[in-house]
Amino acid sequence: VSVPGFRLAAVHAGLKPNGQLDLALVRSDTPCTAAAIFTQNLFQGAPVLFDRKVLAAHRRNVQAVVINSKVANAATGPAGLADAEQMARWTRRCLAWGEHVGVMVMSTGVIGVRLPMDKIQAGIQEAAGSLGGDPLEAARAIMTTDTRPKTASAQAGAATVWGMAKGAGMIHPDMATMLVVILTDAAIPAEVLQGALYAANDTSFRCITVDGDTSPNDTCLVLANGLAGDVDPTVFRTALGEVCESLARQVAFDGEGARHHVTIHVQGARSAADARQIGRTIATSPLVKTAIFGRDANWGRVISAAGRAGVPFDPLTASLCIDDLAVFDKGQPVAFDEARALELLSKTEVSLHLDVGSGPGQATVWTCDLTPEYVDINAAYRS
Amino acid sequence: VSVPGFRLAAVHAGLKPNGQLDLALVRSDTPCTAAAIFTQNLFQGAPVLFDRKVLAAHRRNVQAVVINSKVANAATGPAGLADAEQMARWTRRCLAWGEHVGVMVMSTGVIGVRLPMDKIQAGIQEAAGSLGGDPLEAARAIMTTDTRPKTASAQAGAATVWGMAKGAGMIHPDMATMLVVILTDAAIPAEVLQGALYAANDTSFRCITVDGDTSPNDTCLVLANGLAGDVDPTVFRTALGEVCESLARQVAFDGEGARHHVTIHVQGARSAADARQIGRTIATSPLVKTAIFGRDANWGRVISAAGRAGVPFDPLTASLCIDDLAVFDKGQPVAFDEARALELLSKTEVSLHLDVGSGPGQATVWTCDLTPEYVDINAAYRS
Repeated sequence: VSVPGFRLAAVHAGLKPNGQLDLALVRSDTPCTAAAIFTQNLFQGAPVLFDRKVLAAHRRNVQAVVINSKVANAATGPAGLADAEQMARWTRRCLAWGEHVGVMVMSTGVIGVRLPMDKIQAGIQEAAGSLGGDPLEAARAIMTTDTRPKTASAQAGAATVWGMAKGAGMIHPDMATMLVVILTDAAIPAEVLQGALYAANDTSFRCITVDGDTSPNDTCLVLANGLAGDVDPTVFRTALGEVCESLARQVAFDGEGARHHVTIHVQGARSAADARQIGRTIATSPLVKTAIFGRDANWGRVISAAGRAGVPFDPLTASLCIDDLAVFDKGQPVAFDEARALELLSKTEVSLHLDVGSGPGQATVWTCDLTPEYVDINAAYRS
Repeated sequence: VSVPGFRLAAVHAGLKPNGQLDLALVRSDTPCTAAAIFTQNLFQGAPVLFDRKVLAAHRRNVQAVVINSKVANAATGPAGLADAEQMARWTRRCLAWGEHVGVMVMSTGVIGVRLPMDKIQAGIQEAAGSLGGDPLEAARAIMTTDTRPKTASAQAGAATVWGMAKGAGMIHPDMATMLVVILTDAAIPAEVLQGALYAANDTSFRCITVDGDTSPNDTCLVLANGLAGDVDPTVFRTALGEVCESLARQVAFDGEGARHHVTIHVQGARSAADARQIGRTIATSPLVKTAIFGRDANWGRVISAAGRAGVPFDPLTASLCIDDLAVFDKGQPVAFDEARALELLSKTEVSLHLDVGSGPGQATVWTCDLTPEYVDINAAYRS
């Protein structure tokens, strides 16, 4: 899938070893309306600090995004902020644009390390000269511990909505997620675009977690170049929601070391926000996640996590199913078939259904299991 | 250490395999004043529900506690509550006491499974006949995945304060912790005792975490039989605080699969509660815990966790040391000696010092690292 008016490039700038792709450039032929959601972490990476300023100044005139993996350029002080500015400046120069064009910057990888700016400069130059490449290669260039590139697309009337995402660890988006870039040729006013992104985020990136850790660089950006003309806002919201949900699930299910794709349905909460909070608490519980890794129907850990979510409900009205197998019914244990439970937990796709029986609120949350590989990957990540 | 007027017993009731101790009985010769703190989890185990009633009715007349490991008797419905009541009734009968004597019950282990009551009955009978045993054996009988028994003692004037604790997983006490029994011969009014326990809890069990998961059965109980006479309340509070802190550290450092003992000092927060919240967020971060396991000075994960603690501070005034090695200073990275960092992280005792530079609040939090063994232990716990 390609979106009319956008061209992408992916190169090996030399940040990753072995010639792997590590720098992506997204370029629009015409000015774009932009909307973004950033991390809520108090520590905000230099690219996030920079992009907030770009967005304030150029919300209707963003034309490029340059993204590197391997080094996050976070917790790098004023020098790191200058590096982010320099990346945008070089991109603008390579594309022969003036100061009035907005260029955004994203970085992901190790925190607290300065970018190798000579490599970045050469990488931007090479990328600018090779635009028009396979979008999947750009999705590959922004990967860190991801095992596969993540893209999704949907149609909104005559317009296309396409997105790519990266993220496998430090995933617990709080109003935003890891790096997400969504492109569309729909014509959408800036305020409608931002509102649609908030709404889509609520039921996608806010509903995934890998390890409960939020990143200083979480950014979700949408660029709309308008080439396909006006699109009904409701139709556009639906398409954007589909793309965000697909990317969010791909991120959650590609969690570091993941062997199971876990979907948690919570219903019966007082509100959707309460249901999401319960779901996220279950999804971050190391005990729930290790039990699923071990294919152990240890459902007591699921309800214990629900009970500490900080959300009120009556434990005597709570019921839990593993897939379609009831294990806990209105506050009481159910004698269930252990062989059937093992069979269900041996599948890659595992679903939990918790009804807390206290209201109309429901939510779906996606996560993965916690495996020895997660520990190994993260014990060695920086070195 | 033994406390005058208290006798303990530990037996193998047959819940654990291979003749391991699994049932403990604590008996006071005279009526005790009791204070307790229970889990804040919405799901409260049958022993917690039962003990709350005992405490309300017998706050100045508790004389025994019976404790089993292996099965938590939580999420077991009305039948489980009847089982807890039955345990107290059997204990009272074996000790030839009337209904007016308070007997408390604690259980720890798998959630959602009924207690094997025939074994429990025989175990209580045997324990009642073998009182006067080694207190360390009682501490051993209440262990689940703990690798060692945990006891601590301190003097409060003429009185002794002794305690035992169990806990190695599902540790993230919220106003209480796993099972803790503290015995003293000090004479302390009930309200003073309860207040002293709340205060001690704030700087001990509330400052530890293993995995962020709270248990439905968390209980911390103090029994004071008064045989040593009146003790100055300040002196008693200090002694109780010492015992609680020691037990809390032992629990944190014996976390499932732990290889490092991690102490996190946070200062410069607006309040002690804020400092504790920051420390607990760092201590629950899987990325921080895996980096410490991997002896990797990946300090960006520490500040990222601090930045999502939900507590306001200025990131530009934050500084971090690993032991005495500065790695981050007032919002900027410090060029540090990697070999020295590896040396510090290779020790069993690891300390982090975070100053957020925004106020007088400080706290110390204890935890352990996250290792492949934690995953293995919890993938197989129930089976």
